[in-house]
Amino acid sequence: MTSVFSAYALKHYFDEIHTIDILDCNGGDHGYPFATNFNPEINLREVSANGSYWENGRWVETKPMEIKRVYDFPQVGVKDMYLLHHEEIESLAKNIPGVKRIRFFMTFGQSYLTHMKCLENVGMLSTSPVEFDGKKIVPIQFLKALLPDPASLGPRTVGKTNIGCIFTGIKDGREKTVYIYNVCDHQACYREVGSQAISYTTGVPAMIGAMMVLTKTWNGAGVFNVEEFDPDPYMEALNQWGLPWVVDENPQTVE
Amino acid sequence: MTSVFSAYALKHYFDEIHTIDILDCNGGDHGYPFATNFNPEINLREVSANGSYWENGRWVETKPMEIKRVYDFPQVGVKDMYLLHHEEIESLAKNIPGVKRIRFFMTFGQSYLTHMKCLENVGMLSTSPVEFDGKKIVPIQFLKALLPDPASLGPRTVGKTNIGCIFTGIKDGREKTVYIYNVCDHQACYREVGSQAISYTTGVPAMIGAMMVLTKTWNGAGVFNVEEFDPDPYMEALNQWGLPWVVDENPQTVE
Repeated sequence: MTSVFSAYALKHYFDEIHTIDILDCNGGDHGYPFATNFNPEINLREVSANGSYWENGRWVETKPMEIKRVYDFPQVGVKDMYLLHHEEIESLAKNIPGVKRIRFFMTFGQSYLTHMKCLENVGMLSTSPVEFDGKKIVPIQFLKALLPDPASLGPRTVGKTNIGCIFTGIKDGREKTVYIYNVCDHQACYREVGSQAISYTTGVPAMIGAMMVLTKTWNGAGVFNVEEFDPDPYMEALNQWGLPWVVDENPQTVE
Repeated sequence: MTSVFSAYALKHYFDEIHTIDILDCNGGDHGYPFATNFNPEINLREVSANGSYWENGRWVETKPMEIKRVYDFPQVGVKDMYLLHHEEIESLAKNIPGVKRIRFFMTFGQSYLTHMKCLENVGMLSTSPVEFDGKKIVPIQFLKALLPDPASLGPRTVGKTNIGCIFTGIKDGREKTVYIYNVCDHQACYREVGSQAISYTTGVPAMIGAMMVLTKTWNGAGVFNVEEFDPDPYMEALNQWGLPWVVDENPQTVE
C-alpha cells in the first residue's frame, strides 16, 4: 500500500520526491500484557534485528530500536515509533527517481519493548536450538507456543491503525510536504472479515494487487514492483475495498 | 541463622520480643541482565507466590510483592525490599513467647522484578506442562535451562550480603530495638570456598547446626527448631567460621 502511495504522490503531487517516511502505526489494544499481532517468530526477529534506512544512495545501518520518534497520528494520537528496516525501501530506492532518504517507522509501546528486551535477555528470542531434556528446542519457537495465537486477538482488539507515508519534495519549483495515509478500525475489520486491522491492512492490499494483475489493469513482460505501475486504479480500489485514504498537504513532519 | 539471632536476642537483650523483621539483603552484582542466585525454579516460585506474615496470632496473606520497603543496609546501602513468606516465621511464631508480629523481607532490584513480571506475563514461570512439538515441556524448567547456572555466578559476583533481624520489645520495663546482622562479601567467600555469599550464608549456618548436634552441644529427645537450643555456642561458631555478626542497639526500624 505504501509503495502505491509513493507512486501516487509522485504522479500527482510532486515533480521530485526527496524524502519518504513510511509510518506504520498500530493504536490497537488487545488487552494482553504481551502478544504479537502476527507470527511471533517473524515479529520478534524483525524488531530485535538491526534497523536501516536509505540515504544519499546508500544504506545506513542502525542498532535495534536506536532511532525513536514521537508522532501524533491522525485518529490515533501520540505514539512512540522506531526505525526498522522494511523491504519496500529496497525497491522504492530504485524506483523513485532522485529520492534522497527513505525511512520506515513502526509504533511500539513501552510495555511491548520491555517484554521483548527481557525475553531477549534471558535468551527466549534465540533462534539457535538449546538442548533440553534430550531434545533440541529453539527458544523463540517455544515462546511462540506460549503466546496467544495472533488469530485469537481479532475479537478482543480495539482501536485503530494508521498506515501511510510522508513525502517531501518539489512541485512547480516549490517545496512541498504531503502525507497520504489510511486509518483502519480493528473492530470494524473484525465485524467485516473476522480478523483485526493488522490482517485486514495486510490482506486487502494484496487482494487488490492480485485483482490489478488478473484484470490486466496492471500488465507487462517481466517482474515489477507495485510502484512501477499506474497507481490510480489501485488507489481507487483501496477506497472501494475498505481502505480509504487521506491526502494531507500540511502534515507534521518527522524530525 | 536468623532463628538463632532471635533466640540470642531473647536470651540477652529482651524480656519480651514484640516484633521481628527478618531482612535478607543481597547487594551483589553478577553482571548479567537476569540470573538467579540459586535454583531458578525455586527462586522464581518463591518470589511469584503470595507473601504472608504473622500478626496477632494469625497469618496475614499478601499479594506477590505487595509490600515494599526501602532500607539503608549497613555496608550495602539503600535497597528496595519486599515481604515474602519464609518458613522460619512458622516456628518462630511458636517459639518466641509473646511475639506479636514476624515479617520477612528480601531485597530485589527493579530490573530483576521487571524480568520476572515479563516472564510471568508470557507464561514462562508456569509449572504446568505445555504441549510443544509432541512433547510436554514445563516452561519454568525450560527457562532454567536458558538462565546462567547459579554455580557459574561465583567468580563474577561482587558486593555484599547483609542478613539479620530487627527486634523490638521490652527489657527491664523499657522499650528497646536491636538489630543483629551479618555482612558477607561475595568475592571473599569465593576466594575461600569457590562460591559466592548466597551459598556461603546458606551452607555455613547448616554446617554449624550439624556441628552443634554432632558435638552434642545441642542435644535432646525429639525434633527441635534451632531457636529452641542455647544460641550462645552457635553464635560463637558463626564468629569463628566466617559469619561474624554485629549487634546494633540503635538501628533504623522498618515501617
